[in-house]
Amino acid sequence: MDDATQIINSFKALQDDICAGLENLDGATFREDLWERPGGGGGRTRIIMGNVIEKGGVNFSAVEGTMPENIAAALGLGKNEFLATGVSIVLHPVNPFVPIIHMNVRYFETNTGKWWFGGGIDLTPHYIIDEDAQFFHQQLKRVCDKHDQTYYPKFKQWADDYFYVKHRKETRGIGGIFFDRLAGESKGPYGEFVLDVGKTFLPTYLELANRNMNKAYTEDHLEWQKVRRGRYVEFNLVWDRGTKFGLDTDGRIESILMSLPPQANWIYEHSPKQGSEERRTLDLLKKGINWAT
Amino acid sequence: MDDATQIINSFKALQDDICAGLENLDGATFREDLWERPGGGGGRTRIIMGNVIEKGGVNFSAVEGTMPENIAAALGLGKNEFLATGVSIVLHPVNPFVPIIHMNVRYFETNTGKWWFGGGIDLTPHYIIDEDAQFFHQQLKRVCDKHDQTYYPKFKQWADDYFYVKHRKETRGIGGIFFDRLAGESKGPYGEFVLDVGKTFLPTYLELANRNMNKAYTEDHLEWQKVRRGRYVEFNLVWDRGTKFGLDTDGRIESILMSLPPQANWIYEHSPKQGSEERRTLDLLKKGINWAT
Repeated sequence: MDDATQIINSFKALQDDICAGLENLDGATFREDLWERPGGGGGRTRIIMGNVIEKGGVNFSAVEGTMPENIAAALGLGKNEFLATGVSIVLHPVNPFVPIIHMNVRYFETNTGKWWFGGGIDLTPHYIIDEDAQFFHQQLKRVCDKHDQTYYPKFKQWADDYFYVKHRKETRGIGGIFFDRLAGESKGPYGEFVLDVGKTFLPTYLELANRNMNKAYTEDHLEWQKVRRGRYVEFNLVWDRGTKFGLDTDGRIESILMSLPPQANWIYEHSPKQGSEERRTLDLLKKGINWAT
Repeated sequence: MDDATQIINSFKALQDDICAGLENLDGATFREDLWERPGGGGGRTRIIMGNVIEKGGVNFSAVEGTMPENIAAALGLGKNEFLATGVSIVLHPVNPFVPIIHMNVRYFETNTGKWWFGGGIDLTPHYIIDEDAQFFHQQLKRVCDKHDQTYYPKFKQWADDYFYVKHRKETRGIGGIFFDRLAGESKGPYGEFVLDVGKTFLPTYLELANRNMNKAYTEDHLEWQKVRRGRYVEFNLVWDRGTKFGLDTDGRIESILMSLPPQANWIYEHSPKQGSEERRTLDLLKKGINWAT
């Protein structure tokens, strides 16, 4: 993981492995759209509309070119040639007891020698199931601890702060890990860590899906799922910096907005009853919960 | 319309008249929530979930207090006491041949003597019907021309520019009129104009609803309606300054987001067939169309 080509190829292989694993779970196959960016580079957008995953995207891209001045300024850089590559995933499941999951791993470099890695995985259950939440965070802690004991607590808090629906005063879900501008002496160890995060995604999601995808559900459960998806839309369109960056830089809209759910509902003053499962979930959508232990 | 109390009372009466007219159309009644703002003032949020209007809000508010410094700076003002009052409406109809409509009239003043009016009405048909589009714009032109011959062309272009879903390169609908910071020697004539715009809303919407609310529709029409509602969500959460202002200033969330539809769908790479009614509508979602003549 020392040069850009190697990183790009690892990300492509990661996309392939994840898509194969998800197709095996779901039974349906991904549709692939190859696209090129007028300014340089392109991507492979893969979308599934399946039996377990109602709508999901597993996208790879590697774009390069001259950075727009406002973006360069926002990143604290001069006018530069840049390369940005990554894999981004959002899966909206059919069954409301299967959580929404998001993953991103990314690498950025300029021709003046600046580089960094970023990424994360976070989980948005429609219904929080404690054992699943614990399993999810333990998986993330394990991969973090393998590389650096300081990573998990730091990146867990970063996720709590980042995936926050500020206007609702609630977290998007149960968080996970989030990190950006990870860099140091040499790329090697950071690249290995990021790739390891990427490789944790598939077994973690498969376990959560297999645990819950055959559970029975009612119309009420589906209604709540659509309300929670509405909050997901609110976070992504109002607060998510990645989405904003994509929309501001004239990115490929259908690839950026693949994160939006197939259906979302807004119900005025929707407020789950005291003592209900929905209320319990809502009450747990806050920062600082130690899920791993 | 010379002092704030008079303006506030006119806006309240406008809300009452519009709600009464819409209840008469729909058969259902509005639910009312009275709320107070911790910093000063409050509002009357009225929501209908009816037979013709699937979800609609007709809100009045009059808030006052000390302006947060960042907002004062954004408005080019010093630190001030302020009063902001207005009526805001968004209606999402059941029948896909009835358009989504939005109206806002507002008045703003500070204790240092600055004041202005703003507002507008714009229409978002799921299916553009030429006669309806013409009728709608003629209604707006008529009320504008009554006050100032320069208003309609100026405010029509302003609406084209404002209600633009930039990342989709399409207008939200067929536009209408939009204006802000309307001020001059004395409040009288501006207040009269804004109130006249408000009074145009009800007969215009009733005519459009009556023309179309009993038309037969299919599942395909409903699907397209949900896709267009998705674009409405994208505009409101990504681009609308009013929504952003509300979310940034810790406004009453359920009143601000009443503009979001009961249900919205996102379908990857949804592209209506050449020659279809949906394609025709999409092709007409652009700036600069002269609908009034």
